[in-house]
Amino acid sequence: MELNQVKEQLLKLQSRLSAYAHAMESISYDGQTVAPKGTAENRAHALAVLSEEEYLIKTGSETVALLELLDNNKAVLTEEEKRMVHLMLKDIRRMQSIPMDEYIAYQELVVKAEDVWEDAKRNNDFASFAPYLSEIFETNIKFAKYCAPDKAPYDYWLGEYEDGLTMEVCDEFFAKLRERIVPLIKHISASEQVDSSFLKGNFPVTKQEELSYYLMKLMGLDLAHCGLSTSEHPFTTSLGSHLDERITTHYMDDDFASSMYSVIHESGHALYDTGVDDKYLYTLLDAGVSMGIHESQSRFYENLLGRSKEFVAFVLPKLKELFPSLKDVTADALYRAINRVEPSFIRTEADEVTYCLHVLVRYELEKKLMAGEIKVTELPEHWNKLYKEYLGVDVPNDKLGVLQDSHWAGGAIGYFPSYALGSAYGAQLLSKMAAEIDVKDALSKGDFSKINDWNREHIWKHGSLYRSDELLEKALGEKFSADDYIDYLEKKFKDIYK
Amino acid sequence: MELNQVKEQLLKLQSRLSAYAHAMESISYDGQTVAPKGTAENRAHALAVLSEEEYLIKTGSETVALLELLDNNKAVLTEEEKRMVHLMLKDIRRMQSIPMDEYIAYQELVVKAEDVWEDAKRNNDFASFAPYLSEIFETNIKFAKYCAPDKAPYDYWLGEYEDGLTMEVCDEFFAKLRERIVPLIKHISASEQVDSSFLKGNFPVTKQEELSYYLMKLMGLDLAHCGLSTSEHPFTTSLGSHLDERITTHYMDDDFASSMYSVIHESGHALYDTGVDDKYLYTLLDAGVSMGIHESQSRFYENLLGRSKEFVAFVLPKLKELFPSLKDVTADALYRAINRVEPSFIRTEADEVTYCLHVLVRYELEKKLMAGEIKVTELPEHWNKLYKEYLGVDVPNDKLGVLQDSHWAGGAIGYFPSYALGSAYGAQLLSKMAAEIDVKDALSKGDFSKINDWNREHIWKHGSLYRSDELLEKALGEKFSADDYIDYLEKKFKDIYK
Repeated sequence: MELNQVKEQLLKLQSRLSAYAHAMESISYDGQTVAPKGTAENRAHALAVLSEEEYLIKTGSETVALLELLDNNKAVLTEEEKRMVHLMLKDIRRMQSIPMDEYIAYQELVVKAEDVWEDAKRNNDFASFAPYLSEIFETNIKFAKYCAPDKAPYDYWLGEYEDGLTMEVCDEFFAKLRERIVPLIKHISASEQVDSSFLKGNFPVTKQEELSYYLMKLMGLDLAHCGLSTSEHPFTTSLGSHLDERITTHYMDDDFASSMYSVIHESGHALYDTGVDDKYLYTLLDAGVSMGIHESQSRFYENLLGRSKEFVAFVLPKLKELFPSLKDVTADALYRAINRVEPSFIRTEADEVTYCLHVLVRYELEKKLMAGEIKVTELPEHWNKLYKEYLGVDVPNDKLGVLQDSHWAGGAIGYFPSYALGSAYGAQLLSKMAAEIDVKDALSKGDFSKINDWNREHIWKHGSLYRSDELLEKALGEKFSADDYIDYLEKKFKDIYK
Repeated sequence: MELNQVKEQLLKLQSRLSAYAHAMESISYDGQTVAPKGTAENRAHALAVLSEEEYLIKTGSETVALLELLDNNKAVLTEEEKRMVHLMLKDIRRMQSIPMDEYIAYQELVVKAEDVWEDAKRNNDFASFAPYLSEIFETNIKFAKYCAPDKAPYDYWLGEYEDGLTMEVCDEFFAKLRERIVPLIKHISASEQVDSSFLKGNFPVTKQEELSYYLMKLMGLDLAHCGLSTSEHPFTTSLGSHLDERITTHYMDDDFASSMYSVIHESGHALYDTGVDDKYLYTLLDAGVSMGIHESQSRFYENLLGRSKEFVAFVLPKLKELFPSLKDVTADALYRAINRVEPSFIRTEADEVTYCLHVLVRYELEKKLMAGEIKVTELPEHWNKLYKEYLGVDVPNDKLGVLQDSHWAGGAIGYFPSYALGSAYGAQLLSKMAAEIDVKDALSKGDFSKINDWNREHIWKHGSLYRSDELLEKALGEKFSADDYIDYLEKKFKDIYK
């Protein structure tokens, strides 16, 4: 076969796989948004079949032969083709490293564990979940050894969620954070608390929905290719390609800010996804490269821009128009209120300052569990101890503590650090961007075009072409460092809390 | 291989195919309900890939060998297994009868034709659509000859939509209808028109939505397995199995009856689908057997029950609670208003009496086109002539005439008669049911349980186990005849229009 035909087959293979992804994403999205309550098992059936079909395509001899042939002819491949082959081979080799029966047993384990976790959380009953969680940690250790026998298991998993990430990198990053954020929180706790009482009130859902679309448009999302729905927990997903993006939010009629910042956050994810270059359509490159880079965009729009003085001042007249109870609120009061810092129990509700410490707790626990230094049964005790130490709060129960997140039940270990890293990436990207663009001026005019152009050029359009660490260094023109992030937090919050 | 293993493979194959169906239905349902406007092409990509994958599974040598083995061992198959093998082989043999390139070209033709039809309808421009429609009719004739060289092409297609249906059966059916319904319409036109002015007003969509859920519950739908959404045109679909059913409606804030009767109609479809026996889950038998039987259920609930005196009287207090403008309306006035007869141009908006004549026009035209007796270019002229003759209306333009329905653009020729047959099946089923159950009493109490039990026992639970003509005869205990239907229409409407 001619090499050109082989290359065409590579594209055809990816196009096929994108349709399977589309199908599974569509079924899951429906499940999380509009599906009737009793239909989960029916979806599970379809998803099980489709993922098996996808597995068979990926690991089939035809696919493997095609990719190995291309891998052996790297010299004549474009950069894009090389990356596609690399990503697919990596995926396949991981699948092949894990014995099929163990892989299937693990899939069943996590489905069951998610179910048990839901009940355990509802009933505040960690003991019922612990055996499943133990098995998940043990299996993740075992799988890491299959896939990368030369690496510490936790390093393997960190690298799976963020290229190049290791415990060494995390340790340095979190140490820096701890060193300056724990004192910052102490300073804030000792200062006068800001008034945010006007954020609670009566905010009709229809008006909040109007606000959602206003914000999406303002941020420059193309509404012909990005939909909005509601779900229990806000999320963003692409259906098959960057041409069909969906964000969701969750409205509470006594709190407009919750949904408002969810929409801005998810729109950040959606801007990234929909900003991938059209030439990557129906290929593996048509997606954000990592969770860390994704969060660098979502938390960038949500916090660095969305909670800035300038943006808050710009958006206030629209808020007053929608919610008359805000009529006497000043831009400064709103800015302070939506930046209120208060150590709390729940990561997803945390403010900008305390957020990373929530992640740090999880990182330290994962690290010790993966190294066998502590046992799953001891988790609640360690969890509560760290929350007291870093955040100064007494966790009242496991529901508000170790049982709050679904990640571990789903087998995602090594995933949490990318949330914190993303926030830090964002701050460093902002420093770089602000050297080239008057970001404050743009925000005060509600004009995202130059900001989006900068992100598109440096981050979005590349999709998954580069490793996440490479992409970041290209965009930054320097090594990643947490300094900008911590400087930003200190400066912003010492100004609010004097 | 042991026969038991072969039988297990048959079930596994159907389970696989049900997941593909689920995926494609899910993507289409999303497209018609919540997808952003610009995403159709992305869905088309996924649907094209998935239907090719489905085609390859169905026609693959492994599948064909399995089915032929089973077909050769019919003697040891259960009735259910025999039917599954029959349905799959029928599908595969049709696929194999049509040359692959012609099949693909036809799929592309109808996708293109639907697009052209949409524009043609909007612009009232039949000429632009005519060449596509000609090709569709020609190809349908050609495909019929490939699949059933011994049959008249139109008989082949009629039988594809309704087992055993032929032009002979249709001719007899429609002749009877024409003979008595055309005079009935004349009688109605000469009578005093009923007042339905109060059906127009201001009916908030949120209240209409409340009414939808009220009706679905009242009719006995299990809301854990049946969802409600909105779409441009109301429809019903199952996602993968009868465990996940979706109906849609379309709200107009000046007209509650339109959505109300759409919801009842679609709920009739959904009751049928969700009523299939659980033992058929993830098999080919888990679906209504034909369009005709489906319409016998949807139009049964919509018209025979939903527009009955007893039901209207039962539901009126709920309507008054939701819509205060109806406070002075009597049950009799409402009954007469929602049964108002008025010959019009649009089939989907037609009343119970004129509905079948809309279908008759399409049947006569299809018959002549498939026999080569008239040309597609002459369609508008023939269409308008028949509307004048049967319904007494002058069609003002093709948008309100020959371009109104999407069926032909999608290649569905021979489909329309099942709509009219379904209405007639329903009337005969009601006669049978009413001999065993006090239907009027049940309706006057708003209690659907016995009615649903009867339909479940005789129709729903069987899914696609029997041919549609067999199923109907089993349920009726006699041959199908249009008499009950025509008697019902005459009696009901001569009472309203004296």
